[in-house]
Amino acid sequence: MQYPYGIRLTVAYDGTEFAGWQIQPGQRTVQGELERAAETVAGHAVRVRAAGRTDAGVHALGQVAAFDTGRELLPRNWVLALNSNLPPDLSVRSATSCKPGYDPRHDAMEKTYRYLLHLGFTRHPLLRNRVWHLGKLVEREFIRPDSVDESVPKLDIEAMRDAAGVLVGTHDFGAFCASDDAHDSKVRTIHQVRLLEEFDSSPDLLAVQVRGTAFLKNMVRIMVGTLVEVGRGRLTPRQVASLLDPQADRRQAGETAPPYGLTLVCVKLGRTEIA
Amino acid sequence: MQYPYGIRLTVAYDGTEFAGWQIQPGQRTVQGELERAAETVAGHAVRVRAAGRTDAGVHALGQVAAFDTGRELLPRNWVLALNSNLPPDLSVRSATSCKPGYDPRHDAMEKTYRYLLHLGFTRHPLLRNRVWHLGKLVEREFIRPDSVDESVPKLDIEAMRDAAGVLVGTHDFGAFCASDDAHDSKVRTIHQVRLLEEFDSSPDLLAVQVRGTAFLKNMVRIMVGTLVEVGRGRLTPRQVASLLDPQADRRQAGETAPPYGLTLVCVKLGRTEIA
Repeated sequence: MQYPYGIRLTVAYDGTEFAGWQIQPGQRTVQGELERAAETVAGHAVRVRAAGRTDAGVHALGQVAAFDTGRELLPRNWVLALNSNLPPDLSVRSATSCKPGYDPRHDAMEKTYRYLLHLGFTRHPLLRNRVWHLGKLVEREFIRPDSVDESVPKLDIEAMRDAAGVLVGTHDFGAFCASDDAHDSKVRTIHQVRLLEEFDSSPDLLAVQVRGTAFLKNMVRIMVGTLVEVGRGRLTPRQVASLLDPQADRRQAGETAPPYGLTLVCVKLGRTEIA
Repeated sequence: MQYPYGIRLTVAYDGTEFAGWQIQPGQRTVQGELERAAETVAGHAVRVRAAGRTDAGVHALGQVAAFDTGRELLPRNWVLALNSNLPPDLSVRSATSCKPGYDPRHDAMEKTYRYLLHLGFTRHPLLRNRVWHLGKLVEREFIRPDSVDESVPKLDIEAMRDAAGVLVGTHDFGAFCASDDAHDSKVRTIHQVRLLEEFDSSPDLLAVQVRGTAFLKNMVRIMVGTLVEVGRGRLTPRQVASLLDPQADRRQAGETAPPYGLTLVCVKLGRTEIA
């Protein structure tokens, strides 16, 4: 069935209670909740396409999604009607008309991800499910037993910045993807890796912000896990450079950082297919 | 029973799942969870005292609490031991020795509260339970039906700033407290009311930050509800000034802003009783 109208959405969600973007039988997924809401409004079956799938636990501020429909509504009214059918942890932030069949994955020029590292000694209840708490990980190495409890375990940020610079560019990221990544080529282009200290005015938050054209499975999370190893002094920026050799092994890179620290911040579109 | 050691804590919590600070039979409260954890560590009954009680749904970054104990532990080890007995939405951030019997309520010189207003048109899933979403409230007045969906409903921030300035100082806040407030005198001193636009780099967040020596029941929330009425053009700063007259009526002030937008940020202590 071909429908005459295309709608493109910007979508935000708290990934904590979702089994990721992609629809799966018996699981609560972002795609599943969006399709259910769109079907209620449209009165027909709807298939929603995303700019990029996110894993279970990963959040989004500016995911882009699109679907086709036979229902003619102003974009603003799509926002209102969808949001009144969506749960509190998922929200449509904006809507625009587009050509039917528009696929945001093909139109995505660049994606920006942000990963939040919490360096404080103690847990942060208001940021649980949003940060990777490194306090315990680096505590043994960096905290003296008599230290003040608010003390921030130290990572070598300068070494991390050097390693981040090494990752920028077009490289074979075969050592930076999950073993079940299905892409034939592991070559990807990273435009920028920024380390933002005292993120959101919090002295114990360090954000790693990554911009790139496209990403392999778990790629940002393995990049972050590797940068943390650099910060802990267990890998050097030079060793990170050697991980970009096509012969390099996934096991030489850092662990996969947990999903709940990751947010898909925004997607830059080519805007060539908008109606 | 008199115990020889006093411990002072800085405590953070996500208030969403708590029926407030104060212990109540059959309810999950912050005090109840802290006492349960402290009793597990101390091996005896513990009574925890707070610098200020918070209502159900209200959050804290820097609540101050204290208790007496017969167990001698380094403050750092109290932090570790308590946190391993506390749920994820409640955390001890630091600990210090103090005199037994120390009461943070009497030592509190000033408290800082922050209230987060979300002015965006659509819900913010990652900030649910943290912000008062005004979008719907001000939408009818400020959003044109054909407007872009990301548009920010406008409040008159300058008028709100004028009204905030009116509240600073020593006044009778009888019109700014719950009808069941038990204090005899309604006179309180407010040191500062700041309006922070684009809070945390979010264009649609407005924070109201209030510093004062002590507060009546629901006082910050009624101040915020009143400032929002000023922002909507329904009250003038001059009318707010008249609410500080001891004869003024609670019903002339704004509504009580919902609890989940409020955070107790920090407590300034006299530090006179520290061991």
